[in-house]
Amino acid sequence: MGQSIKDKVAVIGVGCTKFGDRFDQSYEDLAVEAAFAAFGDAGIGPERVEAAWLGTYSPYGGNGKASVALADSLRLYGKPITRVENFCATGTDAFRNACMAVASGVYDVALVLGVEKLKDRPTRGIAREGVHPYQGDGVTAPGMFAMSANRYFHRFGGGRETLAKVAVKNHSNGALNPRAHLQINVTEEQVLKAPIISYPFGLYDCCPTTDGAAAAVICRADMARDFRDDYVLVKGLGMAVTSGRPWFDACYEGVGFASTRAAAAEAYRMAGIENPVKEVKLAEVHDCFTWTEISNYEDLGFCEKGQGIHFIGEGRSALSGDLPVNPSGGLKSFGHPIGASGVRMIYEVVTQLREQAGPRQVKNADIGLAHNLGGPGAVACVVVLGQQ
Amino acid sequence: MGQSIKDKVAVIGVGCTKFGDRFDQSYEDLAVEAAFAAFGDAGIGPERVEAAWLGTYSPYGGNGKASVALADSLRLYGKPITRVENFCATGTDAFRNACMAVASGVYDVALVLGVEKLKDRPTRGIAREGVHPYQGDGVTAPGMFAMSANRYFHRFGGGRETLAKVAVKNHSNGALNPRAHLQINVTEEQVLKAPIISYPFGLYDCCPTTDGAAAAVICRADMARDFRDDYVLVKGLGMAVTSGRPWFDACYEGVGFASTRAAAAEAYRMAGIENPVKEVKLAEVHDCFTWTEISNYEDLGFCEKGQGIHFIGEGRSALSGDLPVNPSGGLKSFGHPIGASGVRMIYEVVTQLREQAGPRQVKNADIGLAHNLGGPGAVACVVVLGQQ
Repeated sequence: MGQSIKDKVAVIGVGCTKFGDRFDQSYEDLAVEAAFAAFGDAGIGPERVEAAWLGTYSPYGGNGKASVALADSLRLYGKPITRVENFCATGTDAFRNACMAVASGVYDVALVLGVEKLKDRPTRGIAREGVHPYQGDGVTAPGMFAMSANRYFHRFGGGRETLAKVAVKNHSNGALNPRAHLQINVTEEQVLKAPIISYPFGLYDCCPTTDGAAAAVICRADMARDFRDDYVLVKGLGMAVTSGRPWFDACYEGVGFASTRAAAAEAYRMAGIENPVKEVKLAEVHDCFTWTEISNYEDLGFCEKGQGIHFIGEGRSALSGDLPVNPSGGLKSFGHPIGASGVRMIYEVVTQLREQAGPRQVKNADIGLAHNLGGPGAVACVVVLGQQ
Repeated sequence: MGQSIKDKVAVIGVGCTKFGDRFDQSYEDLAVEAAFAAFGDAGIGPERVEAAWLGTYSPYGGNGKASVALADSLRLYGKPITRVENFCATGTDAFRNACMAVASGVYDVALVLGVEKLKDRPTRGIAREGVHPYQGDGVTAPGMFAMSANRYFHRFGGGRETLAKVAVKNHSNGALNPRAHLQINVTEEQVLKAPIISYPFGLYDCCPTTDGAAAAVICRADMARDFRDDYVLVKGLGMAVTSGRPWFDACYEGVGFASTRAAAAEAYRMAGIENPVKEVKLAEVHDCFTWTEISNYEDLGFCEKGQGIHFIGEGRSALSGDLPVNPSGGLKSFGHPIGASGVRMIYEVVTQLREQAGPRQVKNADIGLAHNLGGPGAVACVVVLGQQ
């Protein structure tokens, strides 16, 4: 195995659009808004960007665009732009590839942009149909994750009331966040009485369909101080892909995600983190469904398998807990424009590490984590960021 | 600007399927065939691969698959797999990202795989419709490149007879290549009498629609000798994106590709190449249409703008010329399964540099180049490889 690139790459600017129903803004409009927010945050103009990575899940006939649209909208002409796609882990994987390119020495300053417009037309491959030939019509994302949630409850206890605590927490955090899609508080009663989407998930257990974009400007760590004093360092990167058909695999235990465990192990190894629940001070995790967040606590090593129901029940992941999870509001409240989500998580973690998160600020935030999960739970990417 | 990664990454294995009508093989079958050919060539098993990059243009509802399909077909479970998409430059850009990741030190050994199945169903975005909202129905790839070819002829001379020389040369080379799609010789008369697709392009001026896969195994250069003595070194990487609407841009001169010029400049700078026509001994370039190859001669610096018609006319790019271009047969004869093409070019350049190309072997092949062009001429990627 290779070497760590811990502390070799810095994040010097981040930007994020308002997430939500953005019918008034085009894909390019969102890209420009997020990118120029990040340029402004880094104190640079676009001419300083030497290379860019674009995270978009569904261009062309889908809901997005690809590299040339980014060149045109940002006038990034004559520079390299790579589109990365990796299901719902697209944004963090775009960030990971950009970090390795900067760490290699080829580029000093790079832009990572995640953009997706999901509201303009029906989205294939998410709720309507599966992404794998083994998955027929009806084997949707809510359906697949719901099967795991039921299996998990059968084995470890918990139920819809447990899930409701996640929804209440993330909506409460999102209500403090002016860029979140759903800035509304919900009660456990509201969550439990909501229409069922796929049992045990009701409406408030599922993330919404959202438009949005987020951006990060990264550079060689040894030149970061030229841009700002409070830059943030990339401590660890990890990624792993498992089977695209876990729900149909006889060996699959159905109570968590091996992809997340492998990605976290790689990221923690690089970052030198031995006890994540003590060392990680906040985490933005992939709560596409409320149960997914509970599984993530366990798969990211914040608690043992089966203990996630207590981790949420005891308030440990609350904004006031010992390891706040999804202080932004998460996918649940902030929204989930697929390719944008991972970069949006990095925006939140950087904002928290710089202690600029206002009413949702986490205390003693020196190490933060972003985690994406995609492709029937098969693709996970973990990014660990830290103060200098 | 950043630093060179010249000589830091080595190619230790390559593999390529037969290109053509592969109705009998699935996407996964082609992926496995190419990957295991490369593993065998490198003398490794798949367990040595620490990370993979997959180049595929059109997964999901299109003709291909994404990262989880690669994990399932190769049993690469628990490892990172990134899908890169960059129009017709997808394959070389996947290779470029893998090289930077290895150069960063994060991975010692990585797999790059390009796969595409274009024959199973009609392909959107290639011949049927444009890829940008500015391009309506009918503004197809043949139509767009034909406009440039006509403009070029108007300005510099040449005509269909010039294009025919490219078709004859590349078919002649491809006829020597057992993996090429169209292993047939054609005469200038046949090319000129073929049905017109989009004037001045007849049928033999256009690359075919093809299935295929190609793979490369790369590693840190300082450990390459552990795998084989005749490994090949990555000398230079360059990539550039220009406008997605060049044909509609009032400033566009219409006689070549600024993207290729910028990508080549970056790759040559990294490789330390000052006089490409002398230093590059063979080139695999993106001949999606015969005219594109003529423009590529100029944009890659093999001759001045407008001199490409003489470069082909004088036989300089022939197998026996001073700078053989597309000794493999090129897209024209070998075929163009989009995401696979760039990796297939790297397969050919490595085979030539190892002097294993048999009847199509180029003499004194110590430096070779692979060049992809995509997205209305807006996306170019150049890879320079060399002997130790």
